Amino acid sequence: MEWINRHNVLIVGLGLMGGSYAAALKSIGYTVYAIDRDKASIDFALENEIIDKGSVTNDEALISEADCIILALYPAIVVDWVKDNQRFFKPGIRITDVTGIKSCVVYDIQDLLREDCEFIAAHPMAGRELSGVQHSDPSIFKDANYIVVPTDKNTTDAAEWCANLGRILGFGRVSFLSPEEHDRMIAYVSQLTHCIAVALMTCSDNEHIKDYTGDSFRDLTRIARINENMWAELFHMNKDALLEEMNLFIGELTDIKDMIENDDDEGLKAKMRLSTERRSKFDKKRRYEK
Amino acid sequence: MEWINRHNVLIVGLGLMGGSYAAALKSIGYTVYAIDRDKASIDFALENEIIDKGSVTNDEALISEADCIILALYPAIVVDWVKDNQRFFKPGIRITDVTGIKSCVVYDIQDLLREDCEFIAAHPMAGRELSGVQHSDPSIFKDANYIVVPTDKNTTDAAEWCANLGRILGFGRVSFLSPEEHDRMIAYVSQLTHCIAVALMTCSDNEHIKDYTGDSFRDLTRIARINENMWAELFHMNKDALLEEMNLFIGELTDIKDMIENDDDEGLKAKMRLSTERRSKFDKKRRYEK
Repeated sequence: MEWINRHNVLIVGLGLMGGSYAAALKSIGYTVYAIDRDKASIDFALENEIIDKGSVTNDEALISEADCIILALYPAIVVDWVKDNQRFFKPGIRITDVTGIKSCVVYDIQDLLREDCEFIAAHPMAGRELSGVQHSDPSIFKDANYIVVPTDKNTTDAAEWCANLGRILGFGRVSFLSPEEHDRMIAYVSQLTHCIAVALMTCSDNEHIKDYTGDSFRDLTRIARINENMWAELFHMNKDALLEEMNLFIGELTDIKDMIENDDDEGLKAKMRLSTERRSKFDKKRRYEK
Repeated sequence: MEWINRHNVLIVGLGLMGGSYAAALKSIGYTVYAIDRDKASIDFALENEIIDKGSVTNDEALISEADCIILALYPAIVVDWVKDNQRFFKPGIRITDVTGIKSCVVYDIQDLLREDCEFIAAHPMAGRELSGVQHSDPSIFKDANYIVVPTDKNTTDAAEWCANLGRILGFGRVSFLSPEEHDRMIAYVSQLTHCIAVALMTCSDNEHIKDYTGDSFRDLTRIARINENMWAELFHMNKDALLEEMNLFIGELTDIKDMIENDDDEGLKAKMRLSTERRSKFDKKRRYEK
């Protein structure tokens, strides 16, 4: 296993995701370093033995000891971090990330990265409604999807190394997509769903009805508790794909509204039959996998 | 307990909800009768001792033995069932229901009902993605909301009797709303959410992405597996309130889309902060209650 030769792991950005990676890797024997500008996060991680060493600055000594680096920063600053700190990288290291959008990050990093290093992107599709290293929890990876996002510049070895990281972390399913495929997919299944949850929570003054909600409203708004800084960046950086999905969804919901308005019961039932058929396939796939 | 004097319970319509009521009431000692036109449903319930007696017709002997009646029929036929069969009712009985919409059902039944009987409406806010008595399960009532929907015609005694039924069945919270309040609330928290889930499932050909979905998409589409005949009736019978909520939601989501399109990050973050604040209150309320 090549992972054995990359024993010192540096995690840059110690939030919920960076902390969960750290805890998982440390528990199975890796030496884990972390950089985060927030002292309380580093202190918490040291006290709770989630990391071995930490720094609140981009410490040359720490960075140069790393055999591999995991970038767990906000999307808007991840490219600059590599540009500003790659002079410290140990020769030949591999870098991966956890960023939720890919096209506008992966190519920039690969274009500016030193020739002897390799950046291979990944998206761990896991999370919680709480942020910060204090809420990190490697069990969020269980049964979740982990997507490796290689480009033409990547070697097969690096893609396989990155896939193994996903398996080591305990993800339920590891798969491969191009940056463009990834971003189209994520606009639909993740970004559109978060916009819908927010709109459902904000469209109506619901203070007086919170005692009467059933499971459906609770399910649809679970993700309405949202880290606004991170998601504003994600929406912004995947704008075109997201707007396209929002238009498709608003158009579809408007069609359903028109059917209700015009008493078109047959059209309405056909939509619901299609919806039921498609959702049943999602259930089936999941059941087989378990 | 007045419930002791109303020992013979007749359930009309033995689907998921009727079956779950029957199983719960029989298990705590009531004598439970059921009427359903589907022989397989009656046979299943008898074999599994969910009911004591059943009939596939509106059997005079069975109806006249009932001390109280629970109407668990589809919304569009519930009024007619009372009109056609009330001549068989034992004097002074109470009738309640499980219908998901109220204004267009409650007043009609109360207007036509025999003077010596009383109809008091209720909405058990519980369910599953599967229908039929074969999937009935009284545990769906646990932690769920049960809403009593009295009108000016109802006695306090009947409303309290109906609330006690909710408590006996094991609901987590029993509350009271007028038919109009109920229908506005349900248009938002239940009917709109089902329309959104269906539109999310049907707006885009998603066959190829079902292997990459995270929890958010699965949460938002759980209820997209839907009984199209029942929900078409519910949408139709609460049309005005539902269309109003759909317009509010589509307007709100369009505002969010415009913010993304125009790079209005401050507007977007304000929406997400409001969403987070409101959703946190929902969580808190639930935690206190447990």
